[in-house]
Amino acid sequence: MGLFGGDPACVFCGIVSGRVRASRVYEDARVLSFLDIHPASRGDLLVIPKVHATGLEDIDEALMTHLFRVVHLLARALRRSGLPYEGVNLFLADGEAAGQTVFHLHVHVFPRTAEDRFRLEVRWQEPSRADLDDDAAQIRAALKRGGHHPG
Amino acid sequence: MGLFGGDPACVFCGIVSGRVRASRVYEDARVLSFLDIHPASRGDLLVIPKVHATGLEDIDEALMTHLFRVVHLLARALRRSGLPYEGVNLFLADGEAAGQTVFHLHVHVFPRTAEDRFRLEVRWQEPSRADLDDDAAQIRAALKRGGHHPG
Repeated sequence: MGLFGGDPACVFCGIVSGRVRASRVYEDARVLSFLDIHPASRGDLLVIPKVHATGLEDIDEALMTHLFRVVHLLARALRRSGLPYEGVNLFLADGEAAGQTVFHLHVHVFPRTAEDRFRLEVRWQEPSRADLDDDAAQIRAALKRGGHHPG
Repeated sequence: MGLFGGDPACVFCGIVSGRVRASRVYEDARVLSFLDIHPASRGDLLVIPKVHATGLEDIDEALMTHLFRVVHLLARALRRSGLPYEGVNLFLADGEAAGQTVFHLHVHVFPRTAEDRFRLEVRWQEPSRADLDDDAAQIRAALKRGGHHPG
């Protein structure tokens, strides 16, 4: 964190600073939203922190919660905007292995219709209960090491 | 909103109330997280409000922000858990057209690796700048009708 729209190599920083054109939808002191130029569907919004942050490790709790406060606001605005809307997806990719292509953290908020071409291709797995319980214990241990003690 | 883990037809309410077994990872007064029994990848977590809410219109700002505070916490815990992790996706589907299958609001938080089989199939569109500007104006108008005046 630190650079406020100021990484010269980052296209989203360029949008924050006004160097790069965008069709803006929302702006406040910490968060900006604009339409994706390569949308998955009409109305595909990107919601970004103005500060240059790559992933979820690079923003604090206050910025994370504010980002999703704005996502919530915008998802509800899309519903009543008159754009085609039968449902909505929120999607965030953190890391190249997760499909992130622009390395400035962003949330996609995009309306869905029964006719769109967006599909998830997933090889759903069927782990045993013992495997699930083991993995849950491992994640709880990581939470605990981070100072969080789930009730 | 209203029913607190209490919709007898809802499997996630069953997990909240303890009637249905789950490999739990996190719990507080308002939010619960457990492993998906049909994961997209190992460590695929579901994060849900305890109250029965179908979609984003059915939760208030305080619950939305708390839900994603916990999502943030859990995504970071997954990274240091020792489970396979090269990146992470957050995914939420609101509405049948968006791929929602369990009608109790939930966020997927799932680790990604270069070898997994998760793919998005998207027909990326290439709208003109004029179309984007028109859609942005329409969404800004919807925000304004909702009482929000982006700066």
